[in-house]
Amino acid sequence: MDIQDFVENSIGHWRSQRSAHHLAFGHFEAVQSEIDITSLSTEATEVIELCKIYNIDPQTVASPFRMSWEGQSDWEDSEAIKGNCVLIPVPDPVQPRRGKLLRERGYAEEVAAIGEYHFTDDGTFVLITAYDHVAAEEKIWFVNPNVRCRVSLIKTSAGTGLVTASFSSEIRQKSQESDM
Amino acid sequence: MDIQDFVENSIGHWRSQRSAHHLAFGHFEAVQSEIDITSLSTEATEVIELCKIYNIDPQTVASPFRMSWEGQSDWEDSEAIKGNCVLIPVPDPVQPRRGKLLRERGYAEEVAAIGEYHFTDDGTFVLITAYDHVAAEEKIWFVNPNVRCRVSLIKTSAGTGLVTASFSSEIRQKSQESDM
Repeated sequence: MDIQDFVENSIGHWRSQRSAHHLAFGHFEAVQSEIDITSLSTEATEVIELCKIYNIDPQTVASPFRMSWEGQSDWEDSEAIKGNCVLIPVPDPVQPRRGKLLRERGYAEEVAAIGEYHFTDDGTFVLITAYDHVAAEEKIWFVNPNVRCRVSLIKTSAGTGLVTASFSSEIRQKSQESDM
Repeated sequence: MDIQDFVENSIGHWRSQRSAHHLAFGHFEAVQSEIDITSLSTEATEVIELCKIYNIDPQTVASPFRMSWEGQSDWEDSEAIKGNCVLIPVPDPVQPRRGKLLRERGYAEEVAAIGEYHFTDDGTFVLITAYDHVAAEEKIWFVNPNVRCRVSLIKTSAGTGLVTASFSSEIRQKSQESDM
């Protein structure tokens, strides 16, 4: 599994169930959403622009994509969750299973962010992103071509403190009956 | 990471938050429980007995343990969840990061079960258990010495169909203040 395969396998329309565990208080949050992942050209304006911010040569990027999501949390007074984000992998020229991931907006904080990714030997995508105040660790793997799992951990950037652990199961939506 | 280290790191009293995603209906279930993991002697009666059922030489087992749990689901009319189970790892003599795991009771079905485990290169414990009607895949990893994550997937044994995906975050409980 390399980043090109991983992005290609991820392109599509997904229905997501996400559970967040807010650990200090033992709270559960349930989020249902629809996610669209679409590929972008390496020559798309938004790709060129994001590369410029990080001073990355657009020739070195692979399989940029856009993620859009729209959903609803079961927390009281929560507004509809809606957004979209450009993501650009930059594979390591020497170690193709590692690289950087540029994000237009971060997962843990609403600012542009750059993460470090690698694949484990069983094809799990692991992404570590350091923000100002916290660090995020995400693991994403395919159970089959139409089901992805995602575990996201938010830690205090000081180190070992875990604040939130969340889990998403994502099922590909098709016009015809799914073979999930 | 080998099975001896993994079991040793797991011994203790844990508070668990578990979210189950019942995928066909998009349902969420939240379970809060307390889990105790205690080591057993390879000479304990229950270990010898379980080895006998599977015709395993008790000399070949490593770090047998007992897991006890007690909790409550948020599903209507659900009774208190309570149980305990003897588990016995049998490492592969050639590949120490692989082996079999004997269970007194299964996770997916209430019968004795034997699973195949291995560790990935990032120290994740992966256990695959085939039952009569379904197959279970569990992944367990430590975020830090006092936090474990566990993802359990229940698939139709025919192959790729995913029925339930569940996620637990488990936090070690200590008498003194935790450094979690």
